[in-house]
Amino acid sequence: MTRVVGFCPQSVVIVQQSKPWTFRRHISGKDRTISNNQSDVADREQGRAFMPKFDDSGLLSAVVQHAQTMQILMVAFMDREALEKTRQTGFAHFHSRSRGRLWMKGESSGHVLEVQDILVDCDQDAIVLKALPKGPTCHTGATSCFYRSLDENGLHPAGE
Amino acid sequence: MTRVVGFCPQSVVIVQQSKPWTFRRHISGKDRTISNNQSDVADREQGRAFMPKFDDSGLLSAVVQHAQTMQILMVAFMDREALEKTRQTGFAHFHSRSRGRLWMKGESSGHVLEVQDILVDCDQDAIVLKALPKGPTCHTGATSCFYRSLDENGLHPAGE
Repeated sequence: MTRVVGFCPQSVVIVQQSKPWTFRRHISGKDRTISNNQSDVADREQGRAFMPKFDDSGLLSAVVQHAQTMQILMVAFMDREALEKTRQTGFAHFHSRSRGRLWMKGESSGHVLEVQDILVDCDQDAIVLKALPKGPTCHTGATSCFYRSLDENGLHPAGE
Repeated sequence: MTRVVGFCPQSVVIVQQSKPWTFRRHISGKDRTISNNQSDVADREQGRAFMPKFDDSGLLSAVVQHAQTMQILMVAFMDREALEKTRQTGFAHFHSRSRGRLWMKGESSGHVLEVQDILVDCDQDAIVLKALPKGPTCHTGATSCFYRSLDENGLHPAGE
């Protein structure tokens, strides 16, 4: 059983469940009847059903984070096929927009990403793969694709 | 002065600079003359010039990571305007695809993201904002938008 208890500033309905989750909620506004669309939003944000939200191109954002060091290793896109392959095999698969096809990270280099956990965001249009990489993640040989930092003068090696 | 020293498995040219960067490179293949396009790739991947690569919709991916805890807080998109505003103000701005406009994170809630560092990936089509959040980042009130973990049975609160 669910009960509508309020709306957040972005007008997204917040639902209080009979078995509430442990995370805190930012609740404001007053009760009102919800439409089917708002109910969908609530299900997507608060429910336990995985309802991945692909964009107009059939993609969602996927961020790879090292499961131990917490370093962000790469960012790519997944379509439904890549998501399913990742879940089935335990190795990160993506959809290449430039090549228009499925690819498994490390399929040629051997530098695969062994997925330890998959986190899903509030509206289910982005995921984080917590992974253990077998070798450098970036095709340049860097540990992470994010090897440069930006300041007012341009780019420089991250950490300098 | 630059010298081509090889190609990675994805056929992206690797250039050795006269003042080489400190990160390791994965080099394979043999020397060959590079085309202008490959030179562009090398500049983008190894150079110090910021050359953001927006997609067909004028967007790039932006991941927000807590500057201290390393937790990934949210993922969104930036257009050129959002990127410029972020760099000018030091507060994270994004482009809302659903609303078709610029928005500053926290513009209504006050839960702004104070940017400490901006990391740029190899092909400059994704960035990481290392930020200190003023309050919960997710509009649901959760610290991070990634408050759920996915397994074969669906979603459950992350960390459980």
